[in-house]
Order: sequence, then C-alpha cells, then structure tokens
Amino acid sequence: MKAEEYNPALNLMGRRIRLAVIGGGPASFIGGMHRKAARLSDCYDIVAGTLSSDPKRSLEAGKKLGLSEDRIYGHALELITRESQRSDGADVVAIMTPNDSHYEYAMAALDAGLDVICDKPMTNTLEEAISLHSKVLETGLVFCLTHNYTGYPMVRQARGMVEEGDLGEIRLIQVEYVQGGKARGDDPDPGDPKTPWRYKPEKGGPSLVMGDIGTHAHNLLRYISCLEITEVAAEAGHIVPGRVVDDYTGALLRLSNGARGSFWVTQAAAGMENSLKIRLSGTRGTLEWEQETPHRLIYKPLGGPWEIRTPGGSGSTTLGSHSTQIAAGHPEGFPSGFANIYRDAAEAIAARRSGKTARKESCTYPKSKDGLAGVFFVKAVLDSSEKDSHWTRVPFPE
Amino acid sequence: MKAEEYNPALNLMGRRIRLAVIGGGPASFIGGMHRKAARLSDCYDIVAGTLSSDPKRSLEAGKKLGLSEDRIYGHALELITRESQRSDGADVVAIMTPNDSHYEYAMAALDAGLDVICDKPMTNTLEEAISLHSKVLETGLVFCLTHNYTGYPMVRQARGMVEEGDLGEIRLIQVEYVQGGKARGDDPDPGDPKTPWRYKPEKGGPSLVMGDIGTHAHNLLRYISCLEITEVAAEAGHIVPGRVVDDYTGALLRLSNGARGSFWVTQAAAGMENSLKIRLSGTRGTLEWEQETPHRLIYKPLGGPWEIRTPGGSGSTTLGSHSTQIAAGHPEGFPSGFANIYRDAAEAIAARRSGKTARKESCTYPKSKDGLAGVFFVKAVLDSSEKDSHWTRVPFPE
Amino acid sequence: MKAEEYNPALNLMGRRIRLAVIGGGPASFIGGMHRKAARLSDCYDIVAGTLSSDPKRSLEAGKKLGLSEDRIYGHALELITRESQRSDGADVVAIMTPNDSHYEYAMAALDAGLDVICDKPMTNTLEEAISLHSKVLETGLVFCLTHNYTGYPMVRQARGMVEEGDLGEIRLIQVEYVQGGKARGDDPDPGDPKTPWRYKPEKGGPSLVMGDIGTHAHNLLRYISCLEITEVAAEAGHIVPGRVVDDYTGALLRLSNGARGSFWVTQAAAGMENSLKIRLSGTRGTLEWEQETPHRLIYKPLGGPWEIRTPGGSGSTTLGSHSTQIAAGHPEGFPSGFANIYRDAAEAIAARRSGKTARKESCTYPKSKDGLAGVFFVKAVLDSSEKDSHWTRVPFPE
Amino acid sequence: MKAEEYNPALNLMGRRIRLAVIGGGPASFIGGMHRKAARLSDCYDIVAGTLSSDPKRSLEAGKKLGLSEDRIYGHALELITRESQRSDGADVVAIMTPNDSHYEYAMAALDAGLDVICDKPMTNTLEEAISLHSKVLETGLVFCLTHNYTGYPMVRQARGMVEEGDLGEIRLIQVEYVQGGKARGDDPDPGDPKTPWRYKPEKGGPSLVMGDIGTHAHNLLRYISCLEITEVAAEAGHIVPGRVVDDYTGALLRLSNGARGSFWVTQAAAGMENSLKIRLSGTRGTLEWEQETPHRLIYKPLGGPWEIRTPGGSGSTTLGSHSTQIAAGHPEGFPSGFANIYRDAAEAIAARRSGKTARKESCTYPKSKDGLAGVFFVKAVLDSSEKDSHWTRVPFPE
Repeated sequence: MKAEEYNPALNLMGRRIRLAVIGGGPASFIGGMHRKAARLSDCYDIVAGTLSSDPKRSLEAGKKLGLSEDRIYGHALELITRESQRSDGADVVAIMTPNDSHYEYAMAALDAGLDVICDKPMTNTLEEAISLHSKVLETGLVFCLTHNYTGYPMVRQARGMVEEGDLGEIRLIQVEYVQGGKARGDDPDPGDPKTPWRYKPEKGGPSLVMGDIGTHAHNLLRYISCLEITEVAAEAGHIVPGRVVDDYTGALLRLSNGARGSFWVTQAAAGMENSLKIRLSGTRGTLEWEQETPHRLIYKPLGGPWEIRTPGGSGSTTLGSHSTQIAAGHPEGFPSGFANIYRDAAEAIAARRSGKTARKESCTYPKSKDGLAGVFFVKAVLDSSEKDSHWTRVPFPE
Repeated sequence: MKAEEYNPALNLMGRRIRLAVIGGGPASFIGGMHRKAARLSDCYDIVAGTLSSDPKRSLEAGKKLGLSEDRIYGHALELITRESQRSDGADVVAIMTPNDSHYEYAMAALDAGLDVICDKPMTNTLEEAISLHSKVLETGLVFCLTHNYTGYPMVRQARGMVEEGDLGEIRLIQVEYVQGGKARGDDPDPGDPKTPWRYKPEKGGPSLVMGDIGTHAHNLLRYISCLEITEVAAEAGHIVPGRVVDDYTGALLRLSNGARGSFWVTQAAAGMENSLKIRLSGTRGTLEWEQETPHRLIYKPLGGPWEIRTPGGSGSTTLGSHSTQIAAGHPEGFPSGFANIYRDAAEAIAARRSGKTARKESCTYPKSKDGLAGVFFVKAVLDSSEKDSHWTRVPFPE
Repeated sequence: MKAEEYNPALNLMGRRIRLAVIGGGPASFIGGMHRKAARLSDCYDIVAGTLSSDPKRSLEAGKKLGLSEDRIYGHALELITRESQRSDGADVVAIMTPNDSHYEYAMAALDAGLDVICDKPMTNTLEEAISLHSKVLETGLVFCLTHNYTGYPMVRQARGMVEEGDLGEIRLIQVEYVQGGKARGDDPDPGDPKTPWRYKPEKGGPSLVMGDIGTHAHNLLRYISCLEITEVAAEAGHIVPGRVVDDYTGALLRLSNGARGSFWVTQAAAGMENSLKIRLSGTRGTLEWEQETPHRLIYKPLGGPWEIRTPGGSGSTTLGSHSTQIAAGHPEGFPSGFANIYRDAAEAIAARRSGKTARKESCTYPKSKDGLAGVFFVKAVLDSSEKDSHWTRVPFPE
Repeated sequence: MKAEEYNPALNLMGRRIRLAVIGGGPASFIGGMHRKAARLSDCYDIVAGTLSSDPKRSLEAGKKLGLSEDRIYGHALELITRESQRSDGADVVAIMTPNDSHYEYAMAALDAGLDVICDKPMTNTLEEAISLHSKVLETGLVFCLTHNYTGYPMVRQARGMVEEGDLGEIRLIQVEYVQGGKARGDDPDPGDPKTPWRYKPEKGGPSLVMGDIGTHAHNLLRYISCLEITEVAAEAGHIVPGRVVDDYTGALLRLSNGARGSFWVTQAAAGMENSLKIRLSGTRGTLEWEQETPHRLIYKPLGGPWEIRTPGGSGSTTLGSHSTQIAAGHPEGFPSGFANIYRDAAEAIAARRSGKTARKESCTYPKSKDGLAGVFFVKAVLDSSEKDSHWTRVPFPE
C-alpha cells in the first residue's frame, strides 16, 4: 500500500497553488480534464477563469463551475492583468483555448509573472514556438505543456527502464496513434463561423491530425526513448475523400543515435477509439505500451521470459513509483496520468516560489523545449510531405 | 466527446457539499481514495476532519491535508457535535475508521442530522447492522456505503444490460476476489497494541478476508445481477499455516431465482494484485468483467459474435453512460469509479437538502440495505463454515 | 528453431506403429481429432477400423478414410480378434466409442495383447474402472487415456514449474470448465433411439457434464499440481429447467497436502465456447492458464514481475520443451496438444515392444490410474451432491 | 461441432496424393512444417524425398523419416526424373530448399508434368519469377506457394469479411512482422562454406529480411485486402551495426484504390518471437489480427460494439468456415493453418487430375501470380531504398 501522498504545494508553499483557467468551456473535452487533473492532484485551488471568448457564456460557464462571479472574466488578457495584480491572485494560468491563441495568452501570462500550464500543441507556427520558448528561458517561470500521456505510470516506468539500461541501445521504435472520430467525413464547412476551430486551419494549425494527436505521438516517443528525431520521410494528407484538413500521417524516422522509426497517426480509422501505442526495441529487449490498457507495460528481455510490469509492482523504477498513487492492482486511468503532470508542475511552481528544489523525479513533465520540438517536427513532416516524402531534417532545441 | 459534466451539488444546492472526514490518516490506503473521490467528483469541499484517534496525530495529519486548524478534531464524536452546530458546518461525514467504530460514528452522525458516507463493511455485527439500517430509514438521511467497485462504468453498464434483458434469465454466477498481499504469513501478533486493527478480530470483525474483500465480491454480485443470495455452503479459514485470521473463503451459492453461484476470495494468493472478477450467464448470453482491466466488459451473446463493450462506446445503457465522464478510449480507473459513488451520493444529498429529486440513474449507489445484506452474508458464511459447509440460509433485507 | 523431431516409433521400432481405430464415425467430433493426432505425431499408420456399430455405416465411413476394405470391421470385437491374429496386425487400438463400451473393448484388446489408447472418461462405473486398471497392471500393456488437455505445451510447462518448485507449496487451486453448447435446453428425448448417446445415462454415464468435461478439469488439476483431491463438497445438477441430464457442477475441494480448491463446470453457459481455466497459488507464486489461449502461461512470482511464458521461450522446463515442436512464436493449438499424447503413448508402446526405455519426459501421458482417479471423483461428487453437498471422501489409486 | 471433414484427395481421386519432398533436412525448421501440414491435411502420402544436397545426408535423413530407401534421392533433379517416370510416382513435389534453387527445381518439376508446392519467396530474381509464372500458366499445372499465414482460419475470415463488405472501402492498412531471432548480431561469415544459406545473398536473395518475412507481410496484406500495392517509399537495411544482410525494412505504401499503408518488418527486435500483425480500416470499420493469437479476429465496426470473431463462431463467412476443422473454442494453431494451404492445393491437384472442379472456397491458396507479386515488391522496396526512399512504382501481375 502507498504511504500518504506527498503534496508538494502544501509542503513547499504551505498552501495550494491558485490556478486560473483560460478556455475549457461547455463544449470542451479537454477543459474538464484539466480541472479534474488539478483537483485530483490536490495541489491547486481553481480561483478564476475565462471559460469562453464570449463574456456572457464565460460568466454562465464559470458560475456552473462554482467560481466567484468577480473572478470570472470575459477575456483572457483581462484575467491575466487582474489576477496578476491581486494580492490573492492566481499563481498560474492553465491555457486550454484554440491552438492559435496559446501563444498570445502564454506570452502575456509570462510577462505578467505568472507560471503557465498550456495545452498542446504549444503553438501553430514555428516563429511563435521559438519566441515562446525564449521567453520561458528568459523569465525562468514554469511552463508545463500538457502532453498528458507522459504522465501515465507505465509510460514513466518505461522511461525509467530506458534510463536504467533495460533496453540497451535503442534500435527501432514504432509509434502510432489511431483514432476513429473523424472517419465519417461529414466535416463542417471551414468557412462557417459556427464550425469548431479544429476544422479551421488558421485556428487549429496547419495539420489537424498532427496538431491533435501527432504531437502526442511524437512527444511520447521522445519522452520514453530520450532520443531526438533527426530526419523524417512523411506523407500527410486526408484519406477521407473531399476533406480539406489532414486526417492521417505516415512517416519513416531516423533518430539521433542511428535508430530507425515508424510513425502512423490517423483520426479516420472507423471503429477505433483512442489507440496510442509505442514499441521500442534495443540491444537488450523490447518494451510495448498501449494507451487503452495503460496500466500494463510489456517487457520482452533478450534471453529472459516476457514480463508484465504493473504500476507499483515489482521492478518499479523511481520514476515509475513516483507516478502511481494507489496500491498495485488498482488501475488509475487517464485522469490520474493527467494529474501527475499537474502535480509535477505544482512541484516546480512551489519550488520556484519557495526557493526550494523540486525532486529529480518530478522534473520530467513536458516543457517549452518539448513544445518547440513538436512544432519543429510538425513542420518537417509537412515539408517532407510537400516534397513527395523526401527525407527532411528535423531540427530540435538543444 | 462528453458534454460538460453535470455537477449535482452546484446545480441543486448552488454550492459544493461540505464534507468532514473521520479516519483516513497517514497509514491508511482508503483515506486517500475517499478524498481523491470527493475532489474528483467536484461536488464536495473537505472542510473538517478527525484523521486519527490520537488527537496530536490527527492535528498533524489534518494540517498536511490543508485543513483549517480549528476544524481538525481530536475525536470523531467531537467533530460530529461541533460541525453539526456550526452554521457553515459539514453536511456529511465520511467514515473510514476501523470497522468496529463505523456503527458508533454513523449513528452519532445520523442523530446529529448529518448525512453519512461510510466505508465497508457497514458494521462488524449483525445487531449493529440492523440497528443502523433502521436508523437510516427512520431519519431519512442519506447513507452511502463505499462499495466503490460498483462505481466502475462497466460494472454499471453490466447492470444496465442485465436490467435491459441482455442476459435473459440469469442461471450461473461466478465471482472471485483474489489478492496476494497476505501470502507471506508474517502476521503481526494480534495482542500487540501496535498491530494494525485488521489483524484484531474485535476491531476488524469476525473474518478478515470477508470484511476486507468478501463483502465487495458479495455486493458486486448483487449489484450487477439484481438477485439475492438465499443459501450458502461455505468454508472460511486460513490457508497460510499458523495464521489466526481468515485469509480465504470458498462457497457455493443458491440465488433467489434458482440460479447457482461460485464464490472464491482470498488474500493469500502469492503474486496476485487485486483480481476481482465476475462472470454471469443467463439464457441469452454471458458477461465477464475483471477489475484489473475495468474498462472492458465482455459480452458473449447466444448466437452472436462476442463483443467488447467500452465506456462511452456503442451499446451504452443509460446507467453506463451516466457513469463515464470522458470520451471513449480514455480509461478512467479506480479513482473515477470511486468518484462516481461520491457523485451519486452528492446528488442524493443535494436533492434531499434542496427538496428536489435525484435522477434515477444516480440512485444505484450502495446503501444501508446493501450493508445489512453484506453483514447477513458474512454471518451465514461463517455459520456454514462452522457446520462443515452445511447449506445455510442467507437472510436479506426486503 | 527446433531441431528435427525425434520420432520414437521409427527410432525404437524402426517402423510406425500400426493403429486400429474403434469408433469415431461421421457424427463424431473426437474421432477426427484422434486421427489428426495420430497423423500429426507421425508415429502411427492407421491400418484398420470399426467406425460404427452399424457394419454398413462402418464400411462406408472406413472407405472415406482411405482404409483397405478388408480391414474395416463391422464390430469392435471382431477387429480386436482379427487384427491380433494378423502378422501385420494392429499394435494398438484407439477406442473412441460411447462411454459405456470403453470397458468391454479395452478389456478385450488387452486380453488380446494389444496396447490401448482410450477416450475419457475411462468407464462409466467404478467397478469397471477398478477392474480395467487391474488388468492394465497385470498385462503390463500400455493404456493411454486421452485427457488431451494435458498435452498442451504450457500445461506441461506448468507441471514442470510445479515440479521444479516455482510455486513452492501449493495452497489454492481454482479450476473451471465452462462451455455453452448445452445452453439452449432443447435436449432430445433420452428414450428416442435416435438420441445421441450422451443424453442417455446408461451410455453416457451417470452425469453428462462430469463425464464430458468434469473429468478433464479434474485431471488437469491433478496433472499440473501433482496433488490428489481427498474430499469434495459438491452440487451437481441441471441449471436449464426441465433437463434430465446434469449440466453443471460446483464444488469445494480439499487436497492431499491441505490445499483448498474450487471447481466449477458447466455446459450451459450461453455464449461460451470451450473455456477451461486453471489457477494455482503456492507459497512462491501463482500460475494461470486458459485453454482458449493455450500458448500463454502466466506466472506471477512472489516478489518479482509477472511473466508470460511461451512454448519454446525462456525458462522452458524439460517437460515443456519436450512438448513443443515448433520455434517460439508459432502457436500450436489443440491438435498438437492431442498429438503430444499420441506421441508419448507411441514412445511407451515402442519402448515396450522393443525392450527399450522411454525417456522420462515422455511418461506423463494419462494412464489407467488417472482414469480410475477420475471415476472415483465423479462418484464422490455425485455422492456429495445427493447428501446436500456434504463433505465426501475421494479415494484415489496409489 | 464440425461434421466429418471432406477429404478432397480421397473424394475426387479415390486415393491420397503422392508427395515427394525436396529439401527440409535435419537443420530445417520449415521442412518439418511442410510434412506436418501434409499429414494433418490427410490428403497426401509422402512417398519420396531428397532431404539434402549431400546424397549421404539425404539418405540418412530420409530413413529417419521412414521413407523407402529406393525413393530417397541424392539430388532433386534425379528425384523429379525418376518419380515422374514411375507408374506409382509422385504426383507433386514440395520444394523447401534454399531460395536460389526454387526456380530450377520448380521448372524441372513442371516440365516433368508434376504439380508443385513451393516455399516462399518464389524466386530470388525477377527474371526467374516471370519465367516461372509463365511456365505455370503454360502448363496448367498446380503451383502452390506456401505463404502459410493465409491459411489461418481468422485470416481467411478477415478476407471473407472484406469481400462481404464489412469494412466498406479500405482506406488504411498497417502491417508489421517483428521477430527477434537476429537481434544479437553474431552473424556467421557469409564467405564461410558452413554458413547457413540465409546469410549468403547469392543463395538467400538480395534482402534477408524481405525474403524471410517481408514477403509474408506483403502477401498477407494483399490476401486480406484484395488490393495491390502500387507505390512504395522504403528504407531497407540493417539496424544491427556491422551486419552485411538486411534486418529491417520500413515503408510507406500506396494501394490500388488510393488507400495508404505502413509496412514495418524486422528480425532484429530483441525479445520478440514471431509477431506478424495487420490492421485494416475502411469506411465501415476496422479489422485487427495478430499471428501470435491467431484464433482471434477483432472487428470494430463503425457505430457498433467491438467484436471478437472466433473460428467456427458466429458470423463466420464461407471462407472462414472452410478453414477451420474443429468446433469453436479449440484453437488450431500454426500447423493447422499450414495444413489448410496443403489441403486447398490437394483439392486443386485432385480436381485437375480427375477432371473435376475445386470448390470456390478452396481456391484462395497462394499461386505463382502471388509469388511474382512478391518478387516485384521486394525489388521495388530495394530500388526505393537505394534512391533514398523515393516513391517507386510496384508492378503487379494482372
């Protein structure tokens, strides 16, 4: 059984962190997840919010969440200004708006001295990503990008095992993210104002599938392998006839240590739910993980029986143990993985604000550097695809 | 994707429910789960607590949880008295103390007009169980027993399918709960004051394995099947030599509609984690569910292909849909199932306090009647075991 | 990769064993399996047969199998007499007739000096079983009972692991065999001459479900655990209303070393196929095996990660390796497991006939002693059930 | 339960087909499989063989298999000549020699009027493949290429479902074949005469991994989808440093109907066994199949619950039913799938020789056209890889 959880906010700051949410209104899937993650981590009080770009809808939605009326704002920039001026104002903003606004709100928050939690992809353009990453480095503030899949205990365990050498030198990686939600092809008209922002490239970014899920697959690969992708030969496009947004990408990868990779993402595979999978093979064995059964990690060592690793089970690494809150045999699921990201961010925030040091195992949450790497990757994929899948260099931040 | 969650507390009462916790201090596994569930449900503010029967340890633990010092109490009865007198006092107490104290605290809370959430088993003795159940009926207050496994989306989906006739008439049920935590047999001395209460029959109850997990298996069977167990032929005892507490029970069951059952629970199966499984076969098909992969429900209809049902997936019943908060493909896990129980209790509490009616699908959370049925069952199992597994009648509350 | 298989017949006798089949005509499922197993083992030539108790149908069916017309017999006893007199006559008979005739044909074959392969259950009555077992001991001939599930590589691996101590002392066993084929309840009239013999107790034996599959479950438990069942508390009966044959048995078990067991068999679980499962827990870990995925054996050691053992994979025992014919990763299935039984019987026959010694790992095929143990068990189950599930002693042959 | 199997050889020709084996001596994995398949199908008598290119070793090995000494030949061409002249000579030769000799022996056999069963890849060079395919068409003889994975019941079921429209229009295919046998990199010197032929490109062909397993993956994709690959962008090479043969290929595919594909094969993934997997998504749903659990086919229809299809289970297509020999719930495995190929070839041979017509569902076994398609594909992959993964046209035979 697990001992009492360590609450970094209460322990380092003596209080919960004050969180303001930007975005995540009634129609949003991810908004509810951010708030669940914050609550489950027990490190935050949600004190303020802008729930919609329409002030009236923001007010209504904020009240439904139980926020004080005076801390429900009609616009994100107003929230940032006012909360950063209150003595009991938010410490951190969580941004979960359409992709094209991440940059503006994150920059404003950092400028106002607020830490930032931001949904992925970090930005739609490379210029913004570079600029935002610089700002983060410059301000020294916390910037956490919610590539939440890296919060799952067994993803963390996988990284721990890679770091400890259980795979030896990695040679081959296969990553895929296969969804079915966009299989029908009854897309709304991107010119219609009521069309969700995802279907409008100026808001959702240059590639729907890459922004929505491709960056998750990319980040997962980097997180576990501790490798960078250096070259890509890709085809991005739509497999549903007549569609104007991308719904699939296939790619071959070359990695920084000479390993090879396969990348396969789509939102148009009819009948599928949310099948994010990764396999990594090295000189000493293979690891296999699937998001739809996230509490199992298969390890196939060279010369030994196959193993099923479980959260809190035998062979847990420090990073793996850090990321499970319940006794073995009690599956934790998606909200708990998301909450691990929020908790690690809380530890970074609380440590910074209290002049203390976060524990090493709390520092693997995705940062602006990872966001920038993601934007570099999306651009390289699209460049390669435009050049008939020509091998294309993928830059990455040092 | 799921629409914005309906928050029954905010919607019916206009505020979160004020929760006081009794028990669940540093050494407790279940205490953290109750608090996670409350937070995840978003229906409660934890406003007060007695975290230990030792006032000093209670204060320390309460402060670590971020409670105001003036609402951390040294004794549960003090908490009940004082909180019920405050104008901003707790609406409900959640009891997660050693089994022998559930009765006293629950009775006191009900007498003070507080709603009650109580960990299982409801009580150690049948007399207490009958008395508590009567008190609940008499006061009309909400009493929720946290048989949390019935909060899992696919357990609820299973019940929904049984109610809709997908199994036809149920004929056979096999339920098992197999853990490994007590396989080693290095039990502490029950006479030693430092020994955990579970190993002291006067606190933990007449049968360790039945109180800890047997009642869960029993309740799961009743919840899904909507049937009662009417007779049992059982052997309870310890399979680890020299042990003084029970670590296993095997039983044959007869059910209220003539169906037959098999019951198998142990905490001494080396290497196992938390393997609660149930299979139900009826005239029209079979259902299979395992707690260690809780987001999958296997349905094997007579004359059709086998199906894998998923939370939020095709064929979801009203009860199943009610119990999943995320889009299909995002596994929810143990805390979310626990939170469903808390949310349903919140709806009952909020409805009662606001003079409104809870939705039908929110009313399947376990109640004092289920707790009483559990105590009847434990007693019948032990009686049968004493009489060399003689078939023994199992009474159940109407 | 596997080296060339060792063919015991060709190696020890310099020729294939001559096999005569008794039973297994057109309507028989098991007849085809016996012949497949013989062919797959490569140790036999099928030289003669009685395919039906109706001479005309026997001839037709034998011709369809490619047998020489002069060695297709109208009656089993005729086959035994004539084949035992030919210089090129059958060495062994394989009996796959209705259960009530096993005894007569096996006794006649043994009396004629022929080795015997016989389908299960060995006999319908205890008297016959005792007498047949004595005859086998007396003649020194080979008697192989086709409890084919013990031929699966991972069942053999499981026994090998038990023998090598990977489970430590066994404490708990759960075995179940759940089929759905008799869920509908449209049974034929047992009095109708056209009704299949299984539905006629005088032919099929005192309990349909116990003869058909209960003896398999019983034998599997004994084979892997190397333990005997000493007491049983059982309920046998029919769960489908109006049926006159047994379709389920539930039982609690006590084993020779003090371990406890649960036994659950039925042919009336709608939607199920052929779900034979066993779990064994000892002081050092737990093993889990399911017939529907026979090439996986789960091992959950105390204090180590869970393992998936595979045929020919790491950690294979001598017995496990002996029982897989293909490289790892190439699942072998039901016919191959059946063929392992035939091959081991061939080695015993060839060794006996050539005055040589069979290898130790070839000697675990089921024998008349196991058949007798099965008949003892069926009787004890039915006796217990008649006495309202009273604990009943289960004798077993030394 | 299955009715008595239909034996096409006995039924159409009134006798078993006489089979001569070429290759498959002591060190061969695949030789044993061919012979098992022939025996299991019950359609063949193995009457002659050349088991090694060394006459002495051929004789020894042939005797161990129980062949008559006078029909064990020192050379394949001698076997073909002599067997084609005997009145009781072989009807068909099965070729399982090193890849570079397939062409010579197959051509000789066809010239001698013998039907041919040949292991894959059909030939090492495109010229040979074209010439051999022409010869097959010209002679009208049966040529069966043992892409045995297409003999699995659930692979056949998948094709049947595609043909019946259960996927709608196919849009996306992912196929992979991941083995671990060549992960260590301790390859023998290709110049050493004792080195196995696979490591000598002049014998094993231009790409070890493509010849060994890439052609299987390619054929599986074509078999199930009924589509052709028209373009490929590929990288083939070795991921184990210092190796001179190919051990992996990654590729993107474009298919004849505009669908897109991902292709990933390797023999150097440490710890893996024999993981051949395919996923196909169309407008109406997705199918998933894995060779390591071959008796399960997952079907995820758009708008309906996920399904697990089983051999002989509900929803079986004609082609699926044709390819399973046992009752549902009895897994058949690799040898049975291989035997289905042999049985279908037997039906073609027996039909041709008896002037009758094979049943439609027996005609999907791989033929010379499929072999030629495989050689076209290997060449296109290597060409693309040489041109830095440039999209390259893949011709295919009409």
